[in-house]
Amino acid sequence: MYQLHYWPGIQGRGEFVRLALEASGTPYLDVARGPQEEGQGLPAMMAVFDSPDIARPPFACPFLVDGRRVIGQTAAILHYLGPRIGLVPAGETDRLWVHQVQLTIADLVAEAHDVHHPVGSSLYYEEQKDEALRRAEDFRKNRIPKFFGWFETLLERNPPNNGAVVPHLVGARLSYADLSLYQVVDGLLYALPKATRRALKKTPFLAALHERIPTHRRVAAYLASERRLPFNEEGIFRHYPELDG
Amino acid sequence: MYQLHYWPGIQGRGEFVRLALEASGTPYLDVARGPQEEGQGLPAMMAVFDSPDIARPPFACPFLVDGRRVIGQTAAILHYLGPRIGLVPAGETDRLWVHQVQLTIADLVAEAHDVHHPVGSSLYYEEQKDEALRRAEDFRKNRIPKFFGWFETLLERNPPNNGAVVPHLVGARLSYADLSLYQVVDGLLYALPKATRRALKKTPFLAALHERIPTHRRVAAYLASERRLPFNEEGIFRHYPELDG
Repeated sequence: MYQLHYWPGIQGRGEFVRLALEASGTPYLDVARGPQEEGQGLPAMMAVFDSPDIARPPFACPFLVDGRRVIGQTAAILHYLGPRIGLVPAGETDRLWVHQVQLTIADLVAEAHDVHHPVGSSLYYEEQKDEALRRAEDFRKNRIPKFFGWFETLLERNPPNNGAVVPHLVGARLSYADLSLYQVVDGLLYALPKATRRALKKTPFLAALHERIPTHRRVAAYLASERRLPFNEEGIFRHYPELDG
Repeated sequence: MYQLHYWPGIQGRGEFVRLALEASGTPYLDVARGPQEEGQGLPAMMAVFDSPDIARPPFACPFLVDGRRVIGQTAAILHYLGPRIGLVPAGETDRLWVHQVQLTIADLVAEAHDVHHPVGSSLYYEEQKDEALRRAEDFRKNRIPKFFGWFETLLERNPPNNGAVVPHLVGARLSYADLSLYQVVDGLLYALPKATRRALKKTPFLAALHERIPTHRRVAAYLASERRLPFNEEGIFRHYPELDG
């Protein structure tokens, strides 16, 4: 069974992998959230970072363990899982395209994090609030519209989306990038609801994607379950009202 | 012939692709640096972003054009090129590993950029110097050592490196990730020489890799050519002495 390792208590980057596993109905073990007495929990994750026996240790979590393989970097995990769990089209060209979109989503996620941590992750938000106020302004005015505009263009130019109830990034079927795009929009709606709603008014395909993905049967079941952690102020998407506007 | 599109005048992220093409002796056209009267130059690059006929436009440069394919995201370009230009091992596992390392190098590159632009790319450095001073301190103290420490671990745990003149990240042969790792160290030595030299003292394999890559025949010829742009204060790696220490 696939083992996902990620910080317990936050959705974070692990959530992009979780959504793909859940939407495809793939069994997995969420190791760091499991019981220590069964060899799981945070110590099991830290052991992978600390073990001198792992020739190719990940730099950070999330990472996926599949038998003897240890795979880090969210986008690389999804690139690996995609064909195995049926969440990318066949063919190198389409797969590389979905991966390219995923990498751009990852860039947006990193920027969404840095909005509240523009100086560094080693400091608390309260220690970098002045810097965060300035960065948030740039993020709301320039970055969200630029990223959303690009996603909208992709959705507009994907032919099957004309008249489709659920728009997709590639072709007429769900890919892991659709799920990730849903997640980043959902996170931004939590963190910066005013700015994000304003941007979504100009990107109707993206707004429809965000609205429709949660109606997918397995996604709906996951979102309603206890496995879906709520957003909070420890994760990537944090709601600090002073940063919105 | 491969067409590389990137801002003329800076090494930037384009340089990671250039180094791979050059080290492998692959012919390519550096489009935006070419003559406008021959249909090249910056307008040729901007046309790709602006054309409504491109179904899958890149979000940003660099991007690679290979026939009808347009591929964006530096790490995705290298993942695509790697097997075609002989700069990754055979086999999915090794290729995904090299890609994973490349994605982590990309994370370091993004952070190196944000050191001088912690508030946003839409503002000048001078408009965010106070924020940059704080971010640089965190970057020097925490981030460079963390990334360099991970790269050193990978080099230590790659068996062929024991006694090798040129250490490699994977196996005993040059990969595009080796070239990118050289480039990010070289850029950091330019931008933050004191902090980077201090970190390299604790990472002898990484220091050796940085020292030896430029002795590769084709890399040496490239670095001595006019095709290699000098580092400058318009690129990712900028030398602002006040940020070093």
